[in-house]
Amino acid sequence: MGPPGARSAPSKDWLASQGGLPRRSSHSPLAGWLNRRLAGLLQWKLSAAAVRLQLWDGTSLYGGAEPPTGTLRVADARTLRGLVFNPHLQFGEAYMAGRLDVEGELTPVLEAVSRLSLVPSLRERIAVRLPLPNSLSRARRNVHHHYDLGNDFYQGWLDEQLVYTCAYFEHPQVSLEEAQRAKLDLVCRKLRLQPGETVVEAGCGWGALALHMARAYGVRVRAFNVSREQIAYARERASREGLGGRVEFIDDDYRNVKGEYDAFVSVGMLEHVGVKHYESLARVLKRVLRREGGRGLLHFIGRDIARPLNAWIRRRIFPGAYPPTLAEVTTKVLGPARMSVLDVENLRLHYARTLAHWSRRFAAIEDRVRSRYGEEFRRAWELYLAGSEAAFLAGTLQLFQVVFSPAESAPPFLTRVEIYGGERADQWFAATR
Amino acid sequence: MGPPGARSAPSKDWLASQGGLPRRSSHSPLAGWLNRRLAGLLQWKLSAAAVRLQLWDGTSLYGGAEPPTGTLRVADARTLRGLVFNPHLQFGEAYMAGRLDVEGELTPVLEAVSRLSLVPSLRERIAVRLPLPNSLSRARRNVHHHYDLGNDFYQGWLDEQLVYTCAYFEHPQVSLEEAQRAKLDLVCRKLRLQPGETVVEAGCGWGALALHMARAYGVRVRAFNVSREQIAYARERASREGLGGRVEFIDDDYRNVKGEYDAFVSVGMLEHVGVKHYESLARVLKRVLRREGGRGLLHFIGRDIARPLNAWIRRRIFPGAYPPTLAEVTTKVLGPARMSVLDVENLRLHYARTLAHWSRRFAAIEDRVRSRYGEEFRRAWELYLAGSEAAFLAGTLQLFQVVFSPAESAPPFLTRVEIYGGERADQWFAATR
Repeated sequence: MGPPGARSAPSKDWLASQGGLPRRSSHSPLAGWLNRRLAGLLQWKLSAAAVRLQLWDGTSLYGGAEPPTGTLRVADARTLRGLVFNPHLQFGEAYMAGRLDVEGELTPVLEAVSRLSLVPSLRERIAVRLPLPNSLSRARRNVHHHYDLGNDFYQGWLDEQLVYTCAYFEHPQVSLEEAQRAKLDLVCRKLRLQPGETVVEAGCGWGALALHMARAYGVRVRAFNVSREQIAYARERASREGLGGRVEFIDDDYRNVKGEYDAFVSVGMLEHVGVKHYESLARVLKRVLRREGGRGLLHFIGRDIARPLNAWIRRRIFPGAYPPTLAEVTTKVLGPARMSVLDVENLRLHYARTLAHWSRRFAAIEDRVRSRYGEEFRRAWELYLAGSEAAFLAGTLQLFQVVFSPAESAPPFLTRVEIYGGERADQWFAATR
Repeated sequence: MGPPGARSAPSKDWLASQGGLPRRSSHSPLAGWLNRRLAGLLQWKLSAAAVRLQLWDGTSLYGGAEPPTGTLRVADARTLRGLVFNPHLQFGEAYMAGRLDVEGELTPVLEAVSRLSLVPSLRERIAVRLPLPNSLSRARRNVHHHYDLGNDFYQGWLDEQLVYTCAYFEHPQVSLEEAQRAKLDLVCRKLRLQPGETVVEAGCGWGALALHMARAYGVRVRAFNVSREQIAYARERASREGLGGRVEFIDDDYRNVKGEYDAFVSVGMLEHVGVKHYESLARVLKRVLRREGGRGLLHFIGRDIARPLNAWIRRRIFPGAYPPTLAEVTTKVLGPARMSVLDVENLRLHYARTLAHWSRRFAAIEDRVRSRYGEEFRRAWELYLAGSEAAFLAGTLQLFQVVFSPAESAPPFLTRVEIYGGERADQWFAATR
């Protein structure tokens, strides 16, 4: 399978559009009239977001009260129709093909556009009720589609540890590297890992969290992933760091996890599970987490209100992905697994900041990406990174960390004080009860 | 209306039962056989919880592997039938009437019994789908039923500030007084209150939180409550402390709140709202919370899985009350109000500890309570306090604090560090973005 950006994308004259969008005048007066109406409608909506629309013939109808944040340049009537009738899919399709361009900074324009759809559309409300299939074999295919692009591709713009999830910026000046280390450690502290405990990780990426848990907290980890390239990289790193005895990387679906563990952790995998399979995740949780004193953490991209992931992202970047609401996670995963929610934190602005770092690094290697994967791919990824940052800034995407423990067991901690550097208060409750 | 414990309760010979349960032998052999069967069934269930059952004739069929935590002494066949066929309601009815007694410590026995019903029964699954009515006038009546028992009643066993909600025990040795102050302050810190801001409080009890916010954080508060006795007490205290200019106590339903505020807070009221009225709470939230930079906090007794409040508590203690799940709150209140969840904390063991304090203090004034309200009332309240503690210990009740802000506004804080004594990181994000 080729890189996602290229998969069945129509071959477009984006190169021509680089030097100025081609002007195509419509030959039919009716079509011309229709295009003007559609452009008027679209500009009316975009004006509310202070975004200017410019057509292939140079026309602009911007009527916003303030100076525009940026300009969408539309190359042809087909693109215009796409933006009016199916914007969630066609914005991305047109952008990656070069039929749509953005003048001005990309993220602020995308953020402004995202704010126009804080509430799900009717199309989204219907689509969210249709189940996404995600069998074991399809899950594997979906993961390969994205994560097996080549480790060196991700090494080009992720942090040194290849952590491809939201970082945690504790202080203003921290680097992406520090923020990713801080995130790994925050997860461990939220789980209150103790030396000698056992942890199962579902969806371990390149292994950074598993290795951090074993190294800094002295736990034994079994980490699952269906991306072969990532597993190979993680194993190599584990043996290089002498952690091979404490961390086992397993090339298998998390649903095949066996054994019983003190902690369950999954960072950035739930989005790929699909609501239809929450039941099987619940069964896994119920089976593998020690009932007395066990605890778990799910870190995932989520929503305030149920709606599908952006249609274009789903087609080109993350097939099968779905960011759930807290309600879906509590009623379909944690409830059936008989887990109690102990702690939820929303880190959406941290993900926006993480994505801003990735975008900058990605831009720095754009020539390399273009020559290896083609310009369509590069534009697709540029849009995906900036669009995701915009969605976290606008609040159409959330980033939730949810800590839970079996309902019948006493919560393994009483306050959050020790997570944030205060005195440990874990053990006192039992002693003084 | 009389005190809740007395309302339409059958007058029972509980006094007789104090000196030993009356022995009544059944005259019909068939009834005798039936009772033995029912007792066997009940003891079989209770044995799993290490609780012994003793019948009116002294019979005990305990077959647990370990020594029993305590004994349930059943005074007659009617009580036995109630415990078998409708335990959620009849346990309390029998206990308050003195037809059921507990030998051994009350809370551990109730906790063991609670653990038998971690999963909702079929009866509860059906009941939870039936709406509870809660009109403005009924809401007022329900509140009067409980909260207008007389301030001096509550002064007998609450902390000095009359805070009738879950406290926050930061350290092992803190008193109830300190833990309630710590809770008030935790709420303010989670809301990041700033001097000069405006706050609306829905359901303000005796006013402790409103006064703390105004005194320690310099905000202006409008606090709503439909309990006249509480409002009168709160107003008196505000003027005594010279805070009358900054805190306005309003004898009205929260649904009549007007104006726009920087923060919305409600501690221990959501349980009394009823799912049917979440829509109107959502409308209130949407209307009164400033969209840019506003934030809110809901503190409430909740559930992991949707089920009605214990039937006896609903009949005798809190008519119309319902502890919601996080999913119900996010989909029916915060979602429709277009709010994003920023932070959730589960403090259930803190509520267990709070209730243990209340029980001890209540026991210390039991003679006074008995002589004023009668023994049935005293037994009802003893069971309510111990049973609630047991439910929080067993995990059938949760205590959630949920912080939220309007979906379209940037979350007003980036980390929790400053809540727990760390360096403030609030403002840096905008500056460095």
